[in-house]
Amino acid sequence: MTDIAHIEAAAARLAGHALRTPLLGSAFLNDIAGRRVWVKAECLQHTGSFKFRGGWSAVSALTPNQREKGVIAYSSGNHAQGVALAAQRHGAPCVIVMPGDAPRLKIANTRDLGAEVVLYDRERENRDAIGARIAAERSLTLIKPYDEVEVIAGQGTCGLEIAEQATEHRIRQADVIIPCGGGGLTAGVGLALESRAPGLRPRPAEPEGFDDTARSLASGEVCRNARLAGSLCDAIVTPAPGALTFPINRRLCGPGFAVTDDEALQAVALAFTRLKIVLEPGGAVALAAALFRPDQIEGDDVIVIASGGNIDAGLFASALSRFGG
Amino acid sequence: MTDIAHIEAAAARLAGHALRTPLLGSAFLNDIAGRRVWVKAECLQHTGSFKFRGGWSAVSALTPNQREKGVIAYSSGNHAQGVALAAQRHGAPCVIVMPGDAPRLKIANTRDLGAEVVLYDRERENRDAIGARIAAERSLTLIKPYDEVEVIAGQGTCGLEIAEQATEHRIRQADVIIPCGGGGLTAGVGLALESRAPGLRPRPAEPEGFDDTARSLASGEVCRNARLAGSLCDAIVTPAPGALTFPINRRLCGPGFAVTDDEALQAVALAFTRLKIVLEPGGAVALAAALFRPDQIEGDDVIVIASGGNIDAGLFASALSRFGG
Repeated sequence: MTDIAHIEAAAARLAGHALRTPLLGSAFLNDIAGRRVWVKAECLQHTGSFKFRGGWSAVSALTPNQREKGVIAYSSGNHAQGVALAAQRHGAPCVIVMPGDAPRLKIANTRDLGAEVVLYDRERENRDAIGARIAAERSLTLIKPYDEVEVIAGQGTCGLEIAEQATEHRIRQADVIIPCGGGGLTAGVGLALESRAPGLRPRPAEPEGFDDTARSLASGEVCRNARLAGSLCDAIVTPAPGALTFPINRRLCGPGFAVTDDEALQAVALAFTRLKIVLEPGGAVALAAALFRPDQIEGDDVIVIASGGNIDAGLFASALSRFGG
Repeated sequence: MTDIAHIEAAAARLAGHALRTPLLGSAFLNDIAGRRVWVKAECLQHTGSFKFRGGWSAVSALTPNQREKGVIAYSSGNHAQGVALAAQRHGAPCVIVMPGDAPRLKIANTRDLGAEVVLYDRERENRDAIGARIAAERSLTLIKPYDEVEVIAGQGTCGLEIAEQATEHRIRQADVIIPCGGGGLTAGVGLALESRAPGLRPRPAEPEGFDDTARSLASGEVCRNARLAGSLCDAIVTPAPGALTFPINRRLCGPGFAVTDDEALQAVALAFTRLKIVLEPGGAVALAAALFRPDQIEGDDVIVIASGGNIDAGLFASALSRFGG
């Protein structure tokens, strides 16, 4: 089980490799939210999302022998790129198993980061079986996207930075809203805050209709999502809270938020106009919660993580044209 | 004349108020440029450009009596917003003289930052005369956009940060390419580098056809631009190098770059895709120079300032649709 010692060790391994992302703000966003909004811009992290932290943490924690043999991950998105870049910089072979219908740009990017991309047919083939076979044949280490001690520790380094930055800005008491898929970022940040900034309370944000963590927190038991497709916030849609992450999140988190796709897109447009950062819808759900759910938040300050910015140009342009700029 | 002591004093006044902007990078951009490209993301600064530094420096350097009476600036753009926010946070009255045909959003933003906006008719009225009359009537202090000792000192604080960040990344020798209008940012950064990182050489970047500083540096004498309209990079089009800035820049700068509007737009699109930041064309000319003028640069590293991100949604969307993402 990940603890603060894992997170501190991960921070030491990430030093000089991950970016210390800035905490941004805008008087215009404060006016909308009715309180000060602080935006931890993880979209500026290498590969465009916080996932690089977990990827680096996991790859750098391998033994030399494991690293030489290489790693494998299943992902069509941000985890793939985070692991691929971390592996490349460690000189570790890397296989990414992706669906054949993944966007061509994402496949090309993952290859350009030095990974071997293995495509599978979503309809006819089983991803886990393909991955398990390749991993066994080549003795690769599987790096899961959230249910992995060192991945959670890596994401937790974002929480250490938030604790420091909150102190710099004299923020002692606030909700910290975190985009939540499998819950790795939420769990890691929660553990870091528990130890370093106990006045800061983690709260997950999810897309409406895919708020498995919010419902699980409310009921105390693991709830699954009815669907796995149909959200613009694809980066944070997962079947259910993780086996490692949920026990942490149940212990540490305040109530979750659920926002609509349109609210996420509006947050994307406001982040463009007011913060000059590029967010993907899934990366904007925490900002959307801060802006559009003010009655569910207490206090003069709220901190949100803007977790990723890997969005297609067409969708971004349509968010701007629908919600101004 | 601004010197390093002014810049250090400005940095002390800006501490805790201006953002220490991150130095970003991307392996994909390195591939295009053929060397490591480091991007100082000043678009993330408050009000979306480095101009907040100069505005804060100037307003905070006023005597209590001057501050109480207030400040005035002429600008339709980034300088207006930088001065307005700095004045608001100092409780100083602020008048901004803007052309009546300035974009309504910019007028609204400047008002929302607490400034009194005085509109004039570009065709029939003289801006300087209007400004001088109001300043005299109310005893306001004029804050010029670049030919002002404390403004140059404020912009120089960006150079202090670049010197520190270069040291963190062990960059000892590199060109630092700087978007250049009147030359305030170039001069301030140049002075800071001269003192703190003498291996880093400032070089201005301008739009083609508006490269007054590059031509002035080449000839050793002040050259003017033939036109003042017709560039997408409106934020950095000025009639001629400044009276205070040019002597500094002539002493410190390497040769200038001129890039086309299309190259600037392509840099805007690449900054979206690879860095997840929002740039305006004028803020992207230094990045464009690093990417598209590799033969004019030496060494393994190049640092560029991404100086501003105040771009309309329509133009941004058209940059993405023309140059991909």
